[in-house]
Amino acid sequence: MTQITRPDGRAQDALRPVRITRQYTRYAEGSVLIECGETKVICTASVEEKVPGFLRDSGQGWLTAEYGMLPRATHTRGDREAARGKQSGRTQEIQRLIGRSLRAVFDLEKFGPRTIQIDCDVIQADGGTRCASITGAFVAAHDAVSKLIADGKLEASPIRAHVAAVSVGLYQGQPVLDLDYVEDSACDTDMNVIMTSEGGFVEIQGTAEGAPFTRAQSNVLLDLADAGIRQLIDAQKRALGV
Amino acid sequence: MTQITRPDGRAQDALRPVRITRQYTRYAEGSVLIECGETKVICTASVEEKVPGFLRDSGQGWLTAEYGMLPRATHTRGDREAARGKQSGRTQEIQRLIGRSLRAVFDLEKFGPRTIQIDCDVIQADGGTRCASITGAFVAAHDAVSKLIADGKLEASPIRAHVAAVSVGLYQGQPVLDLDYVEDSACDTDMNVIMTSEGGFVEIQGTAEGAPFTRAQSNVLLDLADAGIRQLIDAQKRALGV
Amino acid sequence: MTQITRPDGRAQDALRPVRITRQYTRYAEGSVLIECGETKVICTASVEEKVPGFLRDSGQGWLTAEYGMLPRATHTRGDREAARGKQSGRTQEIQRLIGRSLRAVFDLEKFGPRTIQIDCDVIQADGGTRCASITGAFVAAHDAVSKLIADGKLEASPIRAHVAAVSVGLYQGQPVLDLDYVEDSACDTDMNVIMTSEGGFVEIQGTAEGAPFTRAQSNVLLDLADAGIRQLIDAQKRALGV
Amino acid sequence: MTQITRPDGRAQDALRPVRITRQYTRYAEGSVLIECGETKVICTASVEEKVPGFLRDSGQGWLTAEYGMLPRATHTRGDREAARGKQSGRTQEIQRLIGRSLRAVFDLEKFGPRTIQIDCDVIQADGGTRCASITGAFVAAHDAVSKLIADGKLEASPIRAHVAAVSVGLYQGQPVLDLDYVEDSACDTDMNVIMTSEGGFVEIQGTAEGAPFTRAQSNVLLDLADAGIRQLIDAQKRALGV
Amino acid sequence: MTQITRPDGRAQDALRPVRITRQYTRYAEGSVLIECGETKVICTASVEEKVPGFLRDSGQGWLTAEYGMLPRATHTRGDREAARGKQSGRTQEIQRLIGRSLRAVFDLEKFGPRTIQIDCDVIQADGGTRCASITGAFVAAHDAVSKLIADGKLEASPIRAHVAAVSVGLYQGQPVLDLDYVEDSACDTDMNVIMTSEGGFVEIQGTAEGAPFTRAQSNVLLDLADAGIRQLIDAQKRALGV
Amino acid sequence: MTQITRPDGRAQDALRPVRITRQYTRYAEGSVLIECGETKVICTASVEEKVPGFLRDSGQGWLTAEYGMLPRATHTRGDREAARGKQSGRTQEIQRLIGRSLRAVFDLEKFGPRTIQIDCDVIQADGGTRCASITGAFVAAHDAVSKLIADGKLEASPIRAHVAAVSVGLYQGQPVLDLDYVEDSACDTDMNVIMTSEGGFVEIQGTAEGAPFTRAQSNVLLDLADAGIRQLIDAQKRALGV
Repeated sequence: MTQITRPDGRAQDALRPVRITRQYTRYAEGSVLIECGETKVICTASVEEKVPGFLRDSGQGWLTAEYGMLPRATHTRGDREAARGKQSGRTQEIQRLIGRSLRAVFDLEKFGPRTIQIDCDVIQADGGTRCASITGAFVAAHDAVSKLIADGKLEASPIRAHVAAVSVGLYQGQPVLDLDYVEDSACDTDMNVIMTSEGGFVEIQGTAEGAPFTRAQSNVLLDLADAGIRQLIDAQKRALGV
Repeated sequence: MTQITRPDGRAQDALRPVRITRQYTRYAEGSVLIECGETKVICTASVEEKVPGFLRDSGQGWLTAEYGMLPRATHTRGDREAARGKQSGRTQEIQRLIGRSLRAVFDLEKFGPRTIQIDCDVIQADGGTRCASITGAFVAAHDAVSKLIADGKLEASPIRAHVAAVSVGLYQGQPVLDLDYVEDSACDTDMNVIMTSEGGFVEIQGTAEGAPFTRAQSNVLLDLADAGIRQLIDAQKRALGV
Repeated sequence: MTQITRPDGRAQDALRPVRITRQYTRYAEGSVLIECGETKVICTASVEEKVPGFLRDSGQGWLTAEYGMLPRATHTRGDREAARGKQSGRTQEIQRLIGRSLRAVFDLEKFGPRTIQIDCDVIQADGGTRCASITGAFVAAHDAVSKLIADGKLEASPIRAHVAAVSVGLYQGQPVLDLDYVEDSACDTDMNVIMTSEGGFVEIQGTAEGAPFTRAQSNVLLDLADAGIRQLIDAQKRALGV
Repeated sequence: MTQITRPDGRAQDALRPVRITRQYTRYAEGSVLIECGETKVICTASVEEKVPGFLRDSGQGWLTAEYGMLPRATHTRGDREAARGKQSGRTQEIQRLIGRSLRAVFDLEKFGPRTIQIDCDVIQADGGTRCASITGAFVAAHDAVSKLIADGKLEASPIRAHVAAVSVGLYQGQPVLDLDYVEDSACDTDMNVIMTSEGGFVEIQGTAEGAPFTRAQSNVLLDLADAGIRQLIDAQKRALGV
Repeated sequence: MTQITRPDGRAQDALRPVRITRQYTRYAEGSVLIECGETKVICTASVEEKVPGFLRDSGQGWLTAEYGMLPRATHTRGDREAARGKQSGRTQEIQRLIGRSLRAVFDLEKFGPRTIQIDCDVIQADGGTRCASITGAFVAAHDAVSKLIADGKLEASPIRAHVAAVSVGLYQGQPVLDLDYVEDSACDTDMNVIMTSEGGFVEIQGTAEGAPFTRAQSNVLLDLADAGIRQLIDAQKRALGV
Repeated sequence: MTQITRPDGRAQDALRPVRITRQYTRYAEGSVLIECGETKVICTASVEEKVPGFLRDSGQGWLTAEYGMLPRATHTRGDREAARGKQSGRTQEIQRLIGRSLRAVFDLEKFGPRTIQIDCDVIQADGGTRCASITGAFVAAHDAVSKLIADGKLEASPIRAHVAAVSVGLYQGQPVLDLDYVEDSACDTDMNVIMTSEGGFVEIQGTAEGAPFTRAQSNVLLDLADAGIRQLIDAQKRALGV
């Protein structure tokens, strides 16, 4: 890689400092504050002993997610979606992605007829909120599952692997890992990558904001993401003490 | 007063521990985390250089508030209002109250054609969220005003006095200050009292949940509230260093 | 009290003329037109032999209320809430208050698994619509209960006491009873007081529109309200012939 | 016609008693209570000195209408449309019809850049509410125009003719005029007819609820309607004193 | 009739060319493209083995309809109703009319506890879309019924007669059949007529856009419509091969 | 590749037959029916001589897209989004993708202060509707631009390259091109790939429905997509005669 200077001085392949605080709020079965640099998201996992209609009598469980952002999580205040009366397309896209990503590592048939409801609420946004949400939500869901096992409601964990997410992109023509808001606003290509601890891809979403990108660029970005996700999964493991 | 034992062992006239953290998030002109025992609310004050339509060309400023609760701020998960597509009556009632209370100590004619938008988002709820929101929002608004003065956009502060709020109620027949969730759910009478640092009432909202209450009881409750609010205003002053 | 001249020449402690017409419309189990001066509200009580979900199988009954205003009940036409697609915060606040106030004098456990649905629709508004709604709705609910007893569906009345409401306020610095629209728009402090025939408070909602108010002022206002509510309850009794 | 007995004993060609009360509420420029038997509708006409966007700068005026029904105007309580968050298809169909019917007798080019907003709110429904709304709304609109002329804002009336509406139908195989709710629910064919004082049709809406109807039946019904509308226009004229 | 020249050169009593294509899409039980000149509507009939709540346990079936228009079916693009979040009054009026018209020829008691859901989606609009929808929807419903019979789910057809619709109007003072968009925009009186193959009226909706119309004019228009509908029913029969 | 038998007998690297019909409807500036096997989408491009608020006074143009599906485009009827009152998350995600993909090949600075509004309406769905929408919408947008040039409103085309989309996936463990509904429902990994005629990626969206996928699998899928998109772009060129 050609050397560029990133706005916050990081190396191109460096994550922002990650901090994962468990039991952040007291009522949820799993409650995590994840901080990726200045991006801060509260992720809770709530267990409900019921499943949505389309799974009734299937014996199978479910996991779903909602996402929100405090109006002043951002540089300029955004509308409160509850006041406006609907969630934006962006919000719905993100919450569908979070749910899909976590379900990829859950064996829902072994979870019994219950639902894990993930809530990811961004209290400060500096880029990468959907990725931080996924990485944090996994830890919250893990805690919720551990509680079910500890309470004798579940025998074995339905979690097959860790899952985490990171963004990569081409900034000033160069591949960089874990873009902050300044980089994200100025990058040519932005890619969100979601992988499991077993190394497979759960989701790749790459978008050319400016010029189209090539296969070679895509592969360099995926290499960066792969390395970043390994570190994020390590951070999850340290937080969980596993 | 007859002596009763409160669920958390507090004296009847004792507030829960109050903690006010300024500059809690980084983008808002004023950003406060207020903790009243286990109740935790993020209060931000955003300055917008415009006023709503009904004040156009009046020269006067405005202050308004919105309120929300993370779905899992509570014992059992509540619906996300943004997903349901509307704010509940309770939410609207509270955000109207917050706005009215703060406007009571603001000289909006001296504020210029700008708006302070307050956002109070409850991240953990253990009773008294509307009162904590008002007490915390005052500090956030104060910071936003100080920033306008420091930036040379405002000459003098439009803030005439401090304002704070506390709940009082009759629990097991006895008057108590600053009810937590357990007390609030079981109390006979619940009163939210909002006062200024000059000692006047901005708002009294007393509701008999069970048996109606008498004038004498009302006066005892107002005495308790008065003493509690003085302490809350002291906490605001300590936090602000004034 | 210092003597002031009220816009309509009333004494400071005088109610507007109250007129309560029962059986105003023909289908509702209770149907009342209440006129407080120029404020006119149709209050109906409808009995439904079911309860909301949260009371299912509790054996207990329920009472709830909705409130509306014809678009041209006011000086200038307001939006029709049905056309706009949502009820305002003010509407929701008022209908919650009406329901709470009536439930305070109802022994819902003795009411059986049925619901009284109150509808208060303002056809002409000259201040005090929420208070007139409560005072009128009580009479409508009383008629609905009498009908249930007459029809042999209920043995004894679940109504424990009368309930009525009145506004008081500081107008030109002086305490006045039962504010009309002109006074309400110009007053410093506005207080809605709801009491039962046994003299206790069900709800006190006092708001400083301008300068904060003192305990002494609050007590003078509550005295005025107390006397006014006695007269309103007398009017209810005369209307009901009890 | 074969002789049948109508539920309320009326002759087949008899209207229900019509009563038109002007100045029913005090703020609207025109305010009418129209009673057709037990059907009672408050019709107000509000003048606003502006026109909708599609007429801006056209010099032309506008007239539009909204319609509502109090929840307990009917035998069993209906949903409040404001609470449900949308107007039903029936409501929208009726309010479009009211507006169209009144515009048919208004020369909007002579009305100047202002709008008459009609509101028809049914306080008691016993069939024929849309027809009563049109007949009453005409009187309210007439009063609003007279006020504009009296205030010197308008030189000449833009009203070209009276307009009124009535329902006719086939009940037990026989043509009847002005159906009440019982007849309306049981009739085979239901026709709403709207005519001007000059005798032309503004709108004919005939619907076969059961068996299709013939041209001959249609012509008998239109004869009945024609006679009924003449009487309704007489009632309008008597009410207006013209 | 006086001779006028219609914009597309048709005789006053001439329909536009009608083309009915069955099995237009592959999944619906009945799927028809109807083209009336440049007006093109896709009509599908879907069979669902359930009935709405108000018919539960009645043994009876149901038929209902929805209507939509692609945003660019018209000269200038209209809002997408799904994006705007509600259907217009016009849309609701039309879909209620379609459902009512088809139910008029269906013996729903003989249909069993199932629902035919009609969808009429206009892909190109040149006037007369509601009439084309009804005429086409009948064919789609007929196909759906034939499939039920072929599948052994229904013994005999619940369809009592054909139903079709056409518009007539006064254009340049003269009666014309089957108005296109240019004529419809400029006509004085517009009438939608819906008849069965047995010659009776199911619905007549006549509206004076300009001057009121007379009984004589109405009868001439109904004659025109009658002749047009016979031709449309012939077209239905040819398409169905019956 | 291992040989598998696809449900419709295609080779693994074979597209379904593509048919692009221009000028499918008559009013839109560009109107295309695209058929990819049994998937059929009407794509229109409407030109509006205005831009959204955030581009006002920028001199720049805009392109945006909306997407819908007729209720019975699918095997079982889906809700009509206009009737339900909101667009699903899936719909919003797709329409955002269509807009982003087309903007990637438009030089909006050279387009002047106007907007191309794309509408993609699926009339029959057999998998791959979002990809067919993008491929077809490009042709509609191209026609709209050509019309602007022909009308002298635009000097040069702002279109920099063709853009087309295709889905690829792992079906029964093997990579296949252009999945139909049966394959899409059963596949392990599903990838939507959007490329320009210059060979770069505009968007890659890969999702593991079952087991995570590897880099090697991803590269095989991208090869398949690349070849498929070249054929789709050829089809666009043939249709456009360029």
